[in-house]
Amino acid sequence: MTTEQNPVIRAFDAYVAAVAAQDVEAFVALYDDDVAVFDCWGQWKYSGLDAWRAMVTDWFRGLGRDTEEVVFADVHTTVGADLAFGHAFVTFTAISPAGERQRSLSNRLTVNLERRSVSWKIVHEHTSLPIDMKTGQAIFG
Amino acid sequence: MTTEQNPVIRAFDAYVAAVAAQDVEAFVALYDDDVAVFDCWGQWKYSGLDAWRAMVTDWFRGLGRDTEEVVFADVHTTVGADLAFGHAFVTFTAISPAGERQRSLSNRLTVNLERRSVSWKIVHEHTSLPIDMKTGQAIFG
Repeated sequence: MTTEQNPVIRAFDAYVAAVAAQDVEAFVALYDDDVAVFDCWGQWKYSGLDAWRAMVTDWFRGLGRDTEEVVFADVHTTVGADLAFGHAFVTFTAISPAGERQRSLSNRLTVNLERRSVSWKIVHEHTSLPIDMKTGQAIFG
Repeated sequence: MTTEQNPVIRAFDAYVAAVAAQDVEAFVALYDDDVAVFDCWGQWKYSGLDAWRAMVTDWFRGLGRDTEEVVFADVHTTVGADLAFGHAFVTFTAISPAGERQRSLSNRLTVNLERRSVSWKIVHEHTSLPIDMKTGQAIFG
């Protein structure tokens, strides 16, 4: 399988492009209507695309005039006949209009995809940081 | 597909039984030799079964004379021809030799499985708690 045919790599590439363009609809087009997301921040679960779209809309709005660069690293993918999954480390870096690299944050990310008639969709995503058991604080990479 | 045939449900049932018995080998038998785990606690990634076995061994040893009850809830599974995945909330409760229910903690859990010649194996697992973005503190369920 070439990189171009791998649905997980295609999803990661489209994720990077949608965030760079701050294009909410291009971003949510990667996900299934019934997606369940265990996101790194703030709440236990997002159920369904409307809840996920609201999160993404807030995220992009919060960037203000900055753009956000997304880089996937240590990418592992497994592609089957009708399902696929992958995991990676993802680094988000805000970049000012003047081109200055500002705050940067890495996550651990897992995606689960199902083949649909036209394309593959992310049906489940899980992002997180590990936690220090003694302090309950996130461990930033 | 009956519950008995669903490889994700089978893995969850075997997980519960292995923790109840504090049986390290039964627990690690659920995982592939090349498993990659994004665990909730302490480090970014466990690579390979030896690293994961060491974590499990420490976990069971740390229980002392207590036992640990594991309960999966809000379970969602997807089973394909050669891959399967699932996600759930998992609650761990320590129980004293006198039967007292002690500390209890819930996680979000995702598992990715591949079909092998004899059985299915977990090739990737991701557990976490969401984090408060302002304080960096884990949000306990």
